Amino acid sequence: MLQTVEHSVSARDVLLARYQAVRVASARMCASLEPAEYRLQPIDDVSPPWWNLGHTSWFFARNVLASLGGAITADDAQYDYLLNSYYASLGARLPRSQRGAVSRPTTEEIYAYRASVDERVQQLVETIDSFHWPALEYLLRIGIEHEQQHQELFYTEIKFILAQNPPPLRRSYCDSPSTHREEEQARPLQFCSVPGGLVEIGSVEDDWCWDNELPAHKYYLVPYELADRLVTNQEYLEFIDDGGYRNQLLWLDNGWQQRTAHAWQAPLYWERNDGVWQIWTLAGYQPLRPHEPVSHLSFYEADAFARWRSETRQEESRVRLPSEREWEHAARRFGETNAATAFLDAGLLHPQSQTPVANAVQALREMSGVLWQWTSSYYEPYPGYRPFPGVLAEYNGKFMDNQRVLRGGSCVTPRNHYRLSYRNFWSAATRFQFTGVRLARDSA
Amino acid sequence: MLQTVEHSVSARDVLLARYQAVRVASARMCASLEPAEYRLQPIDDVSPPWWNLGHTSWFFARNVLASLGGAITADDAQYDYLLNSYYASLGARLPRSQRGAVSRPTTEEIYAYRASVDERVQQLVETIDSFHWPALEYLLRIGIEHEQQHQELFYTEIKFILAQNPPPLRRSYCDSPSTHREEEQARPLQFCSVPGGLVEIGSVEDDWCWDNELPAHKYYLVPYELADRLVTNQEYLEFIDDGGYRNQLLWLDNGWQQRTAHAWQAPLYWERNDGVWQIWTLAGYQPLRPHEPVSHLSFYEADAFARWRSETRQEESRVRLPSEREWEHAARRFGETNAATAFLDAGLLHPQSQTPVANAVQALREMSGVLWQWTSSYYEPYPGYRPFPGVLAEYNGKFMDNQRVLRGGSCVTPRNHYRLSYRNFWSAATRFQFTGVRLARDSA
Amino acid sequence: MLQTVEHSVSARDVLLARYQAVRVASARMCASLEPAEYRLQPIDDVSPPWWNLGHTSWFFARNVLASLGGAITADDAQYDYLLNSYYASLGARLPRSQRGAVSRPTTEEIYAYRASVDERVQQLVETIDSFHWPALEYLLRIGIEHEQQHQELFYTEIKFILAQNPPPLRRSYCDSPSTHREEEQARPLQFCSVPGGLVEIGSVEDDWCWDNELPAHKYYLVPYELADRLVTNQEYLEFIDDGGYRNQLLWLDNGWQQRTAHAWQAPLYWERNDGVWQIWTLAGYQPLRPHEPVSHLSFYEADAFARWRSETRQEESRVRLPSEREWEHAARRFGETNAATAFLDAGLLHPQSQTPVANAVQALREMSGVLWQWTSSYYEPYPGYRPFPGVLAEYNGKFMDNQRVLRGGSCVTPRNHYRLSYRNFWSAATRFQFTGVRLARDSA
Amino acid sequence: MLQTVEHSVSARDVLLARYQAVRVASARMCASLEPAEYRLQPIDDVSPPWWNLGHTSWFFARNVLASLGGAITADDAQYDYLLNSYYASLGARLPRSQRGAVSRPTTEEIYAYRASVDERVQQLVETIDSFHWPALEYLLRIGIEHEQQHQELFYTEIKFILAQNPPPLRRSYCDSPSTHREEEQARPLQFCSVPGGLVEIGSVEDDWCWDNELPAHKYYLVPYELADRLVTNQEYLEFIDDGGYRNQLLWLDNGWQQRTAHAWQAPLYWERNDGVWQIWTLAGYQPLRPHEPVSHLSFYEADAFARWRSETRQEESRVRLPSEREWEHAARRFGETNAATAFLDAGLLHPQSQTPVANAVQALREMSGVLWQWTSSYYEPYPGYRPFPGVLAEYNGKFMDNQRVLRGGSCVTPRNHYRLSYRNFWSAATRFQFTGVRLARDSA
Repeated sequence: MLQTVEHSVSARDVLLARYQAVRVASARMCASLEPAEYRLQPIDDVSPPWWNLGHTSWFFARNVLASLGGAITADDAQYDYLLNSYYASLGARLPRSQRGAVSRPTTEEIYAYRASVDERVQQLVETIDSFHWPALEYLLRIGIEHEQQHQELFYTEIKFILAQNPPPLRRSYCDSPSTHREEEQARPLQFCSVPGGLVEIGSVEDDWCWDNELPAHKYYLVPYELADRLVTNQEYLEFIDDGGYRNQLLWLDNGWQQRTAHAWQAPLYWERNDGVWQIWTLAGYQPLRPHEPVSHLSFYEADAFARWRSETRQEESRVRLPSEREWEHAARRFGETNAATAFLDAGLLHPQSQTPVANAVQALREMSGVLWQWTSSYYEPYPGYRPFPGVLAEYNGKFMDNQRVLRGGSCVTPRNHYRLSYRNFWSAATRFQFTGVRLARDSA
Repeated sequence: MLQTVEHSVSARDVLLARYQAVRVASARMCASLEPAEYRLQPIDDVSPPWWNLGHTSWFFARNVLASLGGAITADDAQYDYLLNSYYASLGARLPRSQRGAVSRPTTEEIYAYRASVDERVQQLVETIDSFHWPALEYLLRIGIEHEQQHQELFYTEIKFILAQNPPPLRRSYCDSPSTHREEEQARPLQFCSVPGGLVEIGSVEDDWCWDNELPAHKYYLVPYELADRLVTNQEYLEFIDDGGYRNQLLWLDNGWQQRTAHAWQAPLYWERNDGVWQIWTLAGYQPLRPHEPVSHLSFYEADAFARWRSETRQEESRVRLPSEREWEHAARRFGETNAATAFLDAGLLHPQSQTPVANAVQALREMSGVLWQWTSSYYEPYPGYRPFPGVLAEYNGKFMDNQRVLRGGSCVTPRNHYRLSYRNFWSAATRFQFTGVRLARDSA
Repeated sequence: MLQTVEHSVSARDVLLARYQAVRVASARMCASLEPAEYRLQPIDDVSPPWWNLGHTSWFFARNVLASLGGAITADDAQYDYLLNSYYASLGARLPRSQRGAVSRPTTEEIYAYRASVDERVQQLVETIDSFHWPALEYLLRIGIEHEQQHQELFYTEIKFILAQNPPPLRRSYCDSPSTHREEEQARPLQFCSVPGGLVEIGSVEDDWCWDNELPAHKYYLVPYELADRLVTNQEYLEFIDDGGYRNQLLWLDNGWQQRTAHAWQAPLYWERNDGVWQIWTLAGYQPLRPHEPVSHLSFYEADAFARWRSETRQEESRVRLPSEREWEHAARRFGETNAATAFLDAGLLHPQSQTPVANAVQALREMSGVLWQWTSSYYEPYPGYRPFPGVLAEYNGKFMDNQRVLRGGSCVTPRNHYRLSYRNFWSAATRFQFTGVRLARDSA
Repeated sequence: MLQTVEHSVSARDVLLARYQAVRVASARMCASLEPAEYRLQPIDDVSPPWWNLGHTSWFFARNVLASLGGAITADDAQYDYLLNSYYASLGARLPRSQRGAVSRPTTEEIYAYRASVDERVQQLVETIDSFHWPALEYLLRIGIEHEQQHQELFYTEIKFILAQNPPPLRRSYCDSPSTHREEEQARPLQFCSVPGGLVEIGSVEDDWCWDNELPAHKYYLVPYELADRLVTNQEYLEFIDDGGYRNQLLWLDNGWQQRTAHAWQAPLYWERNDGVWQIWTLAGYQPLRPHEPVSHLSFYEADAFARWRSETRQEESRVRLPSEREWEHAARRFGETNAATAFLDAGLLHPQSQTPVANAVQALREMSGVLWQWTSSYYEPYPGYRPFPGVLAEYNGKFMDNQRVLRGGSCVTPRNHYRLSYRNFWSAATRFQFTGVRLARDSA
């Protein structure tokens, strides 16, 4: 017997609208793909787009429909094998490395599956009783946020996928923005002082959040300073030109091994032809703009760069990467006025140079929506952390080992998916994400 | 100044007709592919269909057009990087493992490239002068035969590609033959005696042939006996059921390592569900037919099987694999009346059971056009071997190391590509080709 | 012109006495080795004893003698290649994996080199002028502590080395203690409450310490509880018997991969014969004593065990590993009365069961000198960390990536090498060290 | 009841004398080893001397004593695990890679075990009855020849083991020969014509031989020519200096991969310091003598060298490696007058330059006892091959896959272990054996 009350009907509309908006966005981002591009998995870490589209749909089928009495189809069962990412409690699954090796389900079947899931989710939202409504709201929201994570992943994956093509043949994912702002002078890097003390960390704004942002908790911060902007290509070039990639003493031991194994000589997507640097972007090759934030580097490169600055510049002698708590506290304290060019919603798909500022002001720029910023912090549970219950306990917890936290969102993060307490995490060698560097230093 | 004489005009027509027939066949074999399937490379050894189609075209462009003054286009140059298989003398090339990682050129571009090559080849054939005609005839024929090799490869590759899909979702490449002959009794294996002596080996029929079939040469063969048919699934099942895959003493040391590393328990494409064996074919799953020739096994399995027969059957105590020269000499001596079900031209794409023979006759059946038969011979140069001149010196010679020769052609070999002296070769662990077993033994 | 003042003469005697005591201890610990045992390196991580003895001597030659004008010999130069562990700034060095592959220098030459270094160090200590005395004191002390670290390593390495021999042939490193205490009842695990707040962490006692224990700093701890003793074999057996090694949901993702890759089914050195567990110790095989602390497990096993306890015991629902700061603060607060059986000095070379306590008291036992206890903390620089200057900057800093901190010292740690703020660190998969588990939990 | 007849008593003395001579030789060759050197296994393929000494003794215990009622001791059983090389039919065994990781049995125990085996073998030889005598003679001889194989292996292994030490510290195995012959002019390479035809191959001299030399059989050889001496260092240097290691077109595909993976730039043991080549020998470093035979190269290098000669010298346009049958037939036809400097018995442990010959004579020099010569032949069973019966079936047969035959014995082969029909075999990438090159060519 369906018992709906007015306020929940309205909540249903809101939830359904958000669901549908996110679902449409996923389809739209893939609209320009060629059939072949849906199936490519150049490395194990980069899933092919068909799988991304399928997995996010399966996530709703498995965690919402199947849990709350929604309609189930015969397909769902076999997709349990194909589209399960890593949930051991849900049984056997296609090995990750095989996502690019199968031709079934077809991309058309995946789209049909998406439509089927959408229809069934809509039906469930519209008909669920009040008693089960909170559970639906809870699980559907997780599914929506999950799909937004995969939207960001998609942009990084398709950038990497297209980059596999030999340079003369590469197609770009999108056109260049019609007007590209003139390169201005870079403002000298400045550091903003942040008083320490016992601060609140985690999801204090009472927004929706992942389990890993909880519990909000007190943390004692020693006073520190945070750079007012991201490190630029120009600044990073100085590190390269000064032999940064050849000086082992600047590197963590593991970092040096990665550098050597993969012959790193510059960030990912940098290419030098006849002495001129260019970079690969979602809008094709672009000249290296000196005042754009440097992007697509690993934690190890960011860390080595900071050590190099610290050793070569008198005035930055205590420069390092910030901890995630330093980053979060500063962002919360200073507020943030993110540029119109920030986040996925701006549609630029590339980190932008800063608008010139007439007078130096003490303000943090590029905190959010430009590049994920490597922090020195490991991805650890906050004190008192409790994983989501049930199957979703595997969502975050089991990966809390040997990964580093990144903060800030990027130019391919949906704006309404992001908040200051958001914790992204990757292993220290990762370079295909939209990563960047913001420096910090101990207070004098 | 074009100087054509009548006989060469006619020869042109013949050559061009053959060229076009082969080119059409390549396109036809791919006609039923879905867009995604063109791009899949599940393992390094299995190239994606787009590359197969492109590489065979590039081969004409590079070795015919570019050598003999044919028309050259801008595309040819960049295809030198993308479509070169292994010719070190032609410069840098796309690593083999990346053939499935690129989305450029698109499949449509590859088809357009094929059309462009076809047009230019036709123009060259029609206009070349008498002086250069022999070179054209020579090189074009190599290109034609090369493309036929890739046709066979295609069928083995697409079989493997489709097999990556989880069983419930696999599509088959083609329909089952509408009428499938009733399984008859298997004829007991019989051995045909072949007198030894000094025999002629190699391309003695004066047909066109690869450099590796030359020179024809004398070879002294000790008298031997050759099985009159291929080993059947039923016979191989006895080996499995007798613990053949668990008895290390039956195996070559390298074979045992392969068996262990890959957990071999049966030939490739065999699956047992609820105690019932079925096999994957280009026409989908089929029940294991006991009297069909066993297929898709490695040299190591064939060798272990022969050793097992030799040790467990009194009457076959000297059973082994034949040498390639034993195989060739017997085939030449007995003649061969290949079944209508043989070769690619029959369109069955699967090795067929033998037609019953009312009275046992001493005749070799299934010599050609059913399955490539592992021989005990390494792929070595014949005495006095000379590689093709120029670039094509790399065609065969550099692979003459640690590979075994297979003889006989298969159900996916074009009939007019084959001859008795044909030498196929693969490393001993290969299972995705249409391989089978014919036993031999020393004369008593 | 040597200018010595009285107080420094006395300090010289003290320093020299300590130097000599440590050097003698290294020689004594190797006294019972057979010639062959000095050279064995069963895995890259386990250096052979000859190298351990040589490297610690080279460390004095390179960092003390060469820096402060001590006598240099021709040998020192070539030992720069052979005995340099990981100092990139000191040039090329023998690859770690080759330490067990060389027969030069001989063990006798290594002993001679030790004697030569000792003689030259003594000479330097006795003759150095006042101006350089502080530098000598500073560097010599580092060398002494460094050698003590290698003493601990030696015991773990020789245990592992001897364990390579097939069980019937294994020799033990030493005899069993003549009288082995009767196994008593295990006391039930109890948790001691520790109030949180802003506490001091790091080298606050103003003892000598490594750079990584500095700077002492404030840290805010949420109230917590710490187990009053280590986890026992009996308790760990329950985890094994309950299928702990087969339940993926208990494990970190990386941990499960390690478990699978290495087929872990129990801690290192545990063997089950006919259903009876025994363990390998430096005194040979011993029956598994249920109330001894469980040892030789990886961080991943410790972590999975804690999760299992948390999920299976009502009263321990928030059980986890402690952070290093929780561990240190509790140890400092409660004081520690280490048992006579603790540390290397007790000579037992094996973690001992606890003496029975008549009445339960709130006290932490086995805090130090029994087993290194895995903490949940990564090995990170403390805020404001400064590496040692010069060459020794590489001592600790570059390894601060993806390793976990262990606290407490062990039964093979020299007592005077240890202090509460001591930070040991190993990658999470390490099992050959004397590792153990102490549980913590959040306050209710 | 012992029934001995006179002639067998005498045969016993002869057999026992040979047994004892070989056993003494093994001990003598190890007499100068340091304790540590007995235990080193730098790579899996190079067994440590203790294992070599133990395995050869175990071989007698297992295949002679245990089979023929000799005395058995408790030790034998556990040595079945430790000293079994690769006999699957004899159960579990120490993994090959662990031979250098164990310290038990000690080297002293191995010597004691040798003495025990010797005593028991002597007792068995002296007391066995006539009925079992032939079996004893048969098996003991195999054991003796087996031990001689391991003597040769020992010299190659100890050379490799000592070469692991950094150059300034390397000890040599032996002193340089006191007088070293002056380097003379190299005689130009000449080719001896060998008429082809149907020849006898294999053990035709009716000597004792391995199963792989049987059966003797007819083989048809095309006329060919064989170089009258081995290729010299000088000749090989020309290949290096002409870029032979950088020209992919000279190499087999597998060979090029090996070259690249291991960065080969010269044969093993060649080192260039300040532009001067020196080589590592069992007598320490020596200058590269231009007219000594080039040694310690892989099949792939030998093959590439031959191709280079063939392409760069008009008069050697058909130069290649000989087949093993070409080699054997020529050696048999021309007879051989091996130099006094040949074989292990000469004690030089290094291939020697040729004595000058006043007048060029058509004669093959350095056929035997200088260097094992790579042939183009794979290690295959001769037609009609039957492995040894029983356990020893695994001695040779299972390795007949992807290995190349070498002929001729070397400067570390015991003379009385060798005969013309002897087939040595190694994988094509092997370099630590005493290998060399003799060229052949097709007759004009």
